[in-house]
Amino acid sequence: MSHQGRLQSSSSPQTGASRRVLIVGGVAGGASCAARLRRLDESVEIIMFDRGPYVSFANCGLPYYVGNVISDERSLLVASREMFRGRFNIAVQTETEVTSIDRGARTIIARDLRTGNTRTETYDVLVLSPGAAPIRPPLPGVDLPGVFAVRNIPDSRRIRSWIADRSARTAVVVGGGFIGLEMVENLIHRALSVAVLEKLPQVMPPLDPEIAVAVMEHLAAKGVQLHLGDGLARIDQRDGGGLVVVAESGARLPADLVILAIGVRPETTLAKDSGLQIGPRGGIVVDSQMRTSDPNVWAVGDVVEVQDVLTGQETVLPLAGPANRQGRIAAESIAGRATNFRGVQATAVVGVLGLTVASTGASEKGLRRAGVTSFQKVYLHPGHHAGYYPGARPIHLKLLFSVPDGRVLGAQAVGLEGVEKRIDVIATAIQFNGTVHDLAEVELCYAPQFGAAKDPVNLAGMLAENVLNGDMPVADWLELDRTDAFLLDVREPDEFANGHIPNAINLPLSQMRARYDELPKDREIWICCEVGQRAYYATRFLTQRGYRSRNLSGGYTTYKALKAASLVR
Amino acid sequence: MSHQGRLQSSSSPQTGASRRVLIVGGVAGGASCAARLRRLDESVEIIMFDRGPYVSFANCGLPYYVGNVISDERSLLVASREMFRGRFNIAVQTETEVTSIDRGARTIIARDLRTGNTRTETYDVLVLSPGAAPIRPPLPGVDLPGVFAVRNIPDSRRIRSWIADRSARTAVVVGGGFIGLEMVENLIHRALSVAVLEKLPQVMPPLDPEIAVAVMEHLAAKGVQLHLGDGLARIDQRDGGGLVVVAESGARLPADLVILAIGVRPETTLAKDSGLQIGPRGGIVVDSQMRTSDPNVWAVGDVVEVQDVLTGQETVLPLAGPANRQGRIAAESIAGRATNFRGVQATAVVGVLGLTVASTGASEKGLRRAGVTSFQKVYLHPGHHAGYYPGARPIHLKLLFSVPDGRVLGAQAVGLEGVEKRIDVIATAIQFNGTVHDLAEVELCYAPQFGAAKDPVNLAGMLAENVLNGDMPVADWLELDRTDAFLLDVREPDEFANGHIPNAINLPLSQMRARYDELPKDREIWICCEVGQRAYYATRFLTQRGYRSRNLSGGYTTYKALKAASLVR
Repeated sequence: MSHQGRLQSSSSPQTGASRRVLIVGGVAGGASCAARLRRLDESVEIIMFDRGPYVSFANCGLPYYVGNVISDERSLLVASREMFRGRFNIAVQTETEVTSIDRGARTIIARDLRTGNTRTETYDVLVLSPGAAPIRPPLPGVDLPGVFAVRNIPDSRRIRSWIADRSARTAVVVGGGFIGLEMVENLIHRALSVAVLEKLPQVMPPLDPEIAVAVMEHLAAKGVQLHLGDGLARIDQRDGGGLVVVAESGARLPADLVILAIGVRPETTLAKDSGLQIGPRGGIVVDSQMRTSDPNVWAVGDVVEVQDVLTGQETVLPLAGPANRQGRIAAESIAGRATNFRGVQATAVVGVLGLTVASTGASEKGLRRAGVTSFQKVYLHPGHHAGYYPGARPIHLKLLFSVPDGRVLGAQAVGLEGVEKRIDVIATAIQFNGTVHDLAEVELCYAPQFGAAKDPVNLAGMLAENVLNGDMPVADWLELDRTDAFLLDVREPDEFANGHIPNAINLPLSQMRARYDELPKDREIWICCEVGQRAYYATRFLTQRGYRSRNLSGGYTTYKALKAASLVR
Repeated sequence: MSHQGRLQSSSSPQTGASRRVLIVGGVAGGASCAARLRRLDESVEIIMFDRGPYVSFANCGLPYYVGNVISDERSLLVASREMFRGRFNIAVQTETEVTSIDRGARTIIARDLRTGNTRTETYDVLVLSPGAAPIRPPLPGVDLPGVFAVRNIPDSRRIRSWIADRSARTAVVVGGGFIGLEMVENLIHRALSVAVLEKLPQVMPPLDPEIAVAVMEHLAAKGVQLHLGDGLARIDQRDGGGLVVVAESGARLPADLVILAIGVRPETTLAKDSGLQIGPRGGIVVDSQMRTSDPNVWAVGDVVEVQDVLTGQETVLPLAGPANRQGRIAAESIAGRATNFRGVQATAVVGVLGLTVASTGASEKGLRRAGVTSFQKVYLHPGHHAGYYPGARPIHLKLLFSVPDGRVLGAQAVGLEGVEKRIDVIATAIQFNGTVHDLAEVELCYAPQFGAAKDPVNLAGMLAENVLNGDMPVADWLELDRTDAFLLDVREPDEFANGHIPNAINLPLSQMRARYDELPKDREIWICCEVGQRAYYATRFLTQRGYRSRNLSGGYTTYKALKAASLVR
């Protein structure tokens, strides 16, 4: 076959024979690669190795198996060894660890974990998909019984047994990221009392802190104890059973079990030992065909470094969607097809006790870290559907965009309903290098129970357009504590009395046309309302009357979040 | 102000004075235009007229007010006359009908419907936003008491009273489109027994018939009587009270009330009488700044003809989203700003008794009507989230795309959950002239309760890519009845025994590798499974073994829908 010939001409040691493709790691990326490669090429020999007892299991489902939301372990098995064999003619060797690679000889050593026997296997093509391992910090007690990480089915099974056998009632989750919060939800579902210990002063580290506030408040309201800005020091055994998590602050958190969800680290030992290039973020370096520094070796999934399309920087992103896509692309590349991995934009979602938190693209802190300064942001809090239809829930949305071209850089949202839909739409726009003008006019589904004539995505785009074209200059909340601007609150007096930003003066929008001449013309006026809409109207009115005014985007609702995140006083 | 000068130089009769903008019709498009124009220009005088008692009400909420889902009429009032006056300095004249326009003199005649008095008002700029009126066919009985259309709050109030006062128990809804089905839902919510009379052989005329089948089945399962392919002949009064809807077939449907939801027609009388250009679809012709054939007159909303971005054809599309957008654009144009309406793609959604039906872009019948032949389609039925997480519901999705460039032309979907999210993502891709390759790689939110590592949108894109690049040739279902292809069903024998396409031969995928040489090499093989996935695997396998095979996209699930829609035997 032509594409085979093309590859063999460059590298195959077995000219004439069928090519031999070995895949190390049989979950998302590896399994996708294997199945896709078979669909493209019946002639290659494909063998997939996995250290664990299963391949192609749903690792994103593991927390829910612990929580008994998924009660049957077999549900997690997406495809069995038998299916790979029968349907795809792919050999699967489970409980087999690949311990070394000889790239010169194109061989690997595989060790059968049940027997301890090792053997050497040759390859024409090698695909590395070993994933990433949960970080276990080298601290006293992290290996005690009752301390778990969640990586595979046996891990989950052990946690289930531990909870059941000991009638566990309390848990500490170390780490407040995606997996940590999913574990919180599921442990609560198992009726445990849960505390979270997180080194950063916020949960959900990828989010900007003022957006994460809504998650923290929701967790607290659901009875989760949050210990933020405090790291793990050690884990002690408690007299009479159980554990005590000791924080760096000295705080002692008793627990019947401890979940370590601090993060993951690419499993690069094999790659490193064989001299493959490793990038600055600690992942295997690959090109846009997922090929490593060795032209006969591909790598996919959580183990690789990929480019963030927003910042242009290298990143490691342990997410199943990109892993599957990379597996597919590696297969196409191995089969000699033109293909290209376009990078990642870090679209992600987590559900936490009824709350949805989703984001795509860059965060504000990510942009600052990458040295990007030419951006702006808007906050808004629209209902997830038309307000006149009962049950609308606010979506707290932050949109970041490039100045002056308006390119969408990222969005974060949190709320009870309709959250991930808006992030998906914005994610799609980002893929096309869309601008806020595009968001303003995207034509989305509207019926009262689903959205609004001006969908939250449209509103976000319109607000950003107003910022870009100068119709609605925004003030930077982060300068609130040191500005000498005149702070104007245009809500009604009863709203103002219920709480307002320090030093603000109240002049309701409803009285603005009659009383605007009370305002100073010689100072910049920063305008606040409840969510930003009335302040926008006031900004437009005052600007046209010769006042220099700016909107405090997102209004008092955003102020409260910024204050809770200690970003303003 | 410079933009004002610019406009006045071309046309204003009141040089020096403030410009006078009259807006006829104060709901979605008109109200948006008024508010936006004020934000852009404090100097113009704005007066908005409406025939009815309210402006800026939520007409998309009217069916739900009938259904008492929205119980407080005031919820429907988005903005009051007082708010327009106080917040925006916009004068609102309700119960005032504009009866004629003198474009030469730049005057209108307005008639106060309460007093009958008329007066003349001058304008510099006129904006027409009169909307579209429900079609009342000139048939006997359509004006009988108890026969209603649903256009405004008083209409809804009358229906509510009629139901309450007469303890109505049965209703006939004439017309099975968006409004008709929303009325069905809400009448059922009021515990009425409902029949639908629809002239076409399907409900939801914008959809292709095989997608509408799922809606019809859902309605039937919920106890709605469907009389399809049968038009309205007349409505009779029943002895002893009540009505009888008589169909063209002679069928007699008794009803305590009748809802006419046959469609709407642009309200162009005023425009026609004043000589404005009307387009082939019966709407006012406007340019991309929403300006009519008279440079001093703009028109927005349901009354205008706009371009369908997929087919390039003119269309009238009575939807609130585009109406709002047009109002905004007209305001920008009136204020002298550069602006552009990009056309419509007909994104729409309706909820019907728990089912969601959504679409964007062109339908297959729309493409055929427009003379487009270079397109292809795929069907799929993925779960709305990962299958391993409990509660996944199928989404029945049809994707239409251009051949050979892969541009996305349209999509239709129906299901219980997550339907409109996928259509919103595809709608966004269409806005950017996205291709199926873009859909294959869009990076969407994934956690098990929200989606899948390969989201339904990704899957749709991948299937379409497979069609485009020849990896998965598809057979055209519509040729099933006359093909001489070998029909192969690759499901397991028990599935096959439960129902299969006529003349199909069963050879399960699980036995394919062992038995494929039983298949004919001299005939094209059309392959069917349950939803299309196993057939795809079989197509790939057989193609590589030298067989000419095609996938029957969407499998037996799609076959059943096509059969129910009488598109195949």
